Amino acid sequence: MTDTSVSVPPIPDTTLVPIPTGSVGYVSAAFIEFNEPLVLSSGQILPSYTLAVETYGSLNAERSNAVLVCHALNASHHVAGIDASQPDSIGWWDNMVGPGKAVDTDRFFVIGVNNIGSCFGSTGPVTINPETGQPWGASFPLLTVEDWVHAQARLADCFEIAKFAAVMGGSLGGMQALSWAITCPERVGDCIVIASTARLSAQNIAFNEVARRAIITDPDFRGGDYYQYGVVPTHGLTVARMVGHITYQSDEVMAEKFGRTQRSPAPGGNFHYNYDVEFEVESYLRYQGEKFSRYFDANTYLLLTRALDYFDPARDHGGDLARALRDVQARFLLVSFTTDWRFAPEHSRELVRALLKNKCDVSYAEIDAPHGHDAFLLGDRRYHAIVQGYYDQIAMRLGLPARERTTGVLA
Amino acid sequence: MTDTSVSVPPIPDTTLVPIPTGSVGYVSAAFIEFNEPLVLSSGQILPSYTLAVETYGSLNAERSNAVLVCHALNASHHVAGIDASQPDSIGWWDNMVGPGKAVDTDRFFVIGVNNIGSCFGSTGPVTINPETGQPWGASFPLLTVEDWVHAQARLADCFEIAKFAAVMGGSLGGMQALSWAITCPERVGDCIVIASTARLSAQNIAFNEVARRAIITDPDFRGGDYYQYGVVPTHGLTVARMVGHITYQSDEVMAEKFGRTQRSPAPGGNFHYNYDVEFEVESYLRYQGEKFSRYFDANTYLLLTRALDYFDPARDHGGDLARALRDVQARFLLVSFTTDWRFAPEHSRELVRALLKNKCDVSYAEIDAPHGHDAFLLGDRRYHAIVQGYYDQIAMRLGLPARERTTGVLA
Repeated sequence: MTDTSVSVPPIPDTTLVPIPTGSVGYVSAAFIEFNEPLVLSSGQILPSYTLAVETYGSLNAERSNAVLVCHALNASHHVAGIDASQPDSIGWWDNMVGPGKAVDTDRFFVIGVNNIGSCFGSTGPVTINPETGQPWGASFPLLTVEDWVHAQARLADCFEIAKFAAVMGGSLGGMQALSWAITCPERVGDCIVIASTARLSAQNIAFNEVARRAIITDPDFRGGDYYQYGVVPTHGLTVARMVGHITYQSDEVMAEKFGRTQRSPAPGGNFHYNYDVEFEVESYLRYQGEKFSRYFDANTYLLLTRALDYFDPARDHGGDLARALRDVQARFLLVSFTTDWRFAPEHSRELVRALLKNKCDVSYAEIDAPHGHDAFLLGDRRYHAIVQGYYDQIAMRLGLPARERTTGVLA
Repeated sequence: MTDTSVSVPPIPDTTLVPIPTGSVGYVSAAFIEFNEPLVLSSGQILPSYTLAVETYGSLNAERSNAVLVCHALNASHHVAGIDASQPDSIGWWDNMVGPGKAVDTDRFFVIGVNNIGSCFGSTGPVTINPETGQPWGASFPLLTVEDWVHAQARLADCFEIAKFAAVMGGSLGGMQALSWAITCPERVGDCIVIASTARLSAQNIAFNEVARRAIITDPDFRGGDYYQYGVVPTHGLTVARMVGHITYQSDEVMAEKFGRTQRSPAPGGNFHYNYDVEFEVESYLRYQGEKFSRYFDANTYLLLTRALDYFDPARDHGGDLARALRDVQARFLLVSFTTDWRFAPEHSRELVRALLKNKCDVSYAEIDAPHGHDAFLLGDRRYHAIVQGYYDQIAMRLGLPARERTTGVLA
């Protein structure tokens, strides 16, 4: 513990926004410094790193009720509640995590952590490399999902958590949860993997590559060192996000939300016959892309998509996923969504089969929801009911107090 | 005919490449000038235009055996045979069109025509605007599928073809065939619509918009007038093609062709931990994208994708496709492919239902082929057998001579 220091900024006076029922309320990130070098999968060494962390609920005396929530590509440690420094910023999984919600912070101590390499407070391309006094930029080492798990294991040490009640995540976060169960089998009680995969398909990699080429070939990318030129590869990031966004949604939901509706037709309902926005779906995508390019870091986007590509626990076992899972001890809950074509149910089924081959305790739900990959972030009642029921079982097994209330989408 | 002039370059001495069985042999484009103004859907007027055309087989005395083949996004009038000026250039539908092939040039007179707005010889953004003496560039008017049909109707006049035996095409070409049947009902005997749609979905438009933003936001696009700066928006075009290419292939076929195979692994089979090519699929996509950016015009890409977006014959009929098809007289063959997720079978089924509502004569085949949208260009035997059988019926009805031979994929 001597190599770790923790700083928690004070929560400012934020009484302006009322706290809704089921919310963990105002939250503030802690920044935890780890001064022991981290040897990465690439062989490179990160001499030290900071993790941005939020916690919700209380760690019990037995330290048995901790849940680690891993985030997906564009999210952060801000999982639930209202960010005290930005009162309009609700946590990305606030519908799932809170007092009385599926992941019930009345009973569980939930930790959200920003991945290293990301851009929301943990060490990454945008932070200062102490050796140069400049942002890491293009010199920040590439990371793998396993590297994140190793970095997060030290976070568990820091909290003196020997074993998590559960590690959970969706999409990239689900890959991290799975990697936790493989990398630190004795430290994961339950592993909850939602809308995720044990390895990306060629098509998945292809979409990531399109996004990366859009960013890297934007002249404002400047080889990854755009910070020092005071520019940002806005256009590349926008295109990257637009293509990503399409893959997060189902064809069905886009048809329902936008169809072929024109944005603001010319007189007589005509087209404008130009390349400005004609259709609502174009307006939406441009808005999403441009918004993203204002808050997300381009080097981070590259790094996270590459970590997605690289993830493949079966790779060191001749492609045999069941062998890669031989030593896991966790029980598993897997959830997939029928209209998710990014990580289609078959990805989850493959993982279920490999776990069953190892006689693991696996629950699997395939939810017939229209929202595509994004469904894992949304409040489908059946989906939340399954997660809630699963956590209730975890609580029972651990002898945690009974649920006091039900809030959130199941209230 | 007074306003039309035809020039056919002589076929050079090209005896170096042997002509395979079933090939139409060496071919050379004719360039036909139309000097009568064309009023476009946008209200703009194209004062004159040239169409690049290839023909195969012979027009019979009754002029009853003509088939018009419409091309998709990146193709041209060079449908079949070996381009005499580029002996390595085989027509894009050479497996379908030729003596003894499914579309049998022993019996049918086949016309391939380059759409106006394209970049392979017909008037478009790359050709000279006679009023300025400069390439049209960004000032070239936007076009619709209906505009192409009107331009091609004059081509039919030029050949004195009152009625085509068939108009056929795949993808965007299928939309043109459908539009022919709606716009000039008395001039289309049979309409063959393959891997196509009566209107793009929101997801389809979204992918087109991503491609357009990649091109337009490339600084080398220069507002569409890159020609005068001696540059090309290579990066934008490359990204546009990469994303397009993903949508042309099925997840399954990409998995089979590329999987997660590494391109040239680091020692020990390791990753390189950088953003160069790691996986075969990345190499393939970059190659396809870069190749495309060297031969295809960026303004053409914008124009063609916009024409795709705009196509929606039901739009003038309150969204009722059956009403839009009320006056068609053609018989129809529709073909879709199960793994085509760009224009999935449901697009064709919707069209079939609307045609049946009008008591049209419709044949429909849904081919269980693995190749996604690209399948319409490939030589699936069941697919070619269906097209061949359908053309044999057309020939019989028209009293054309019996098939002399069978070549191509069905030989």
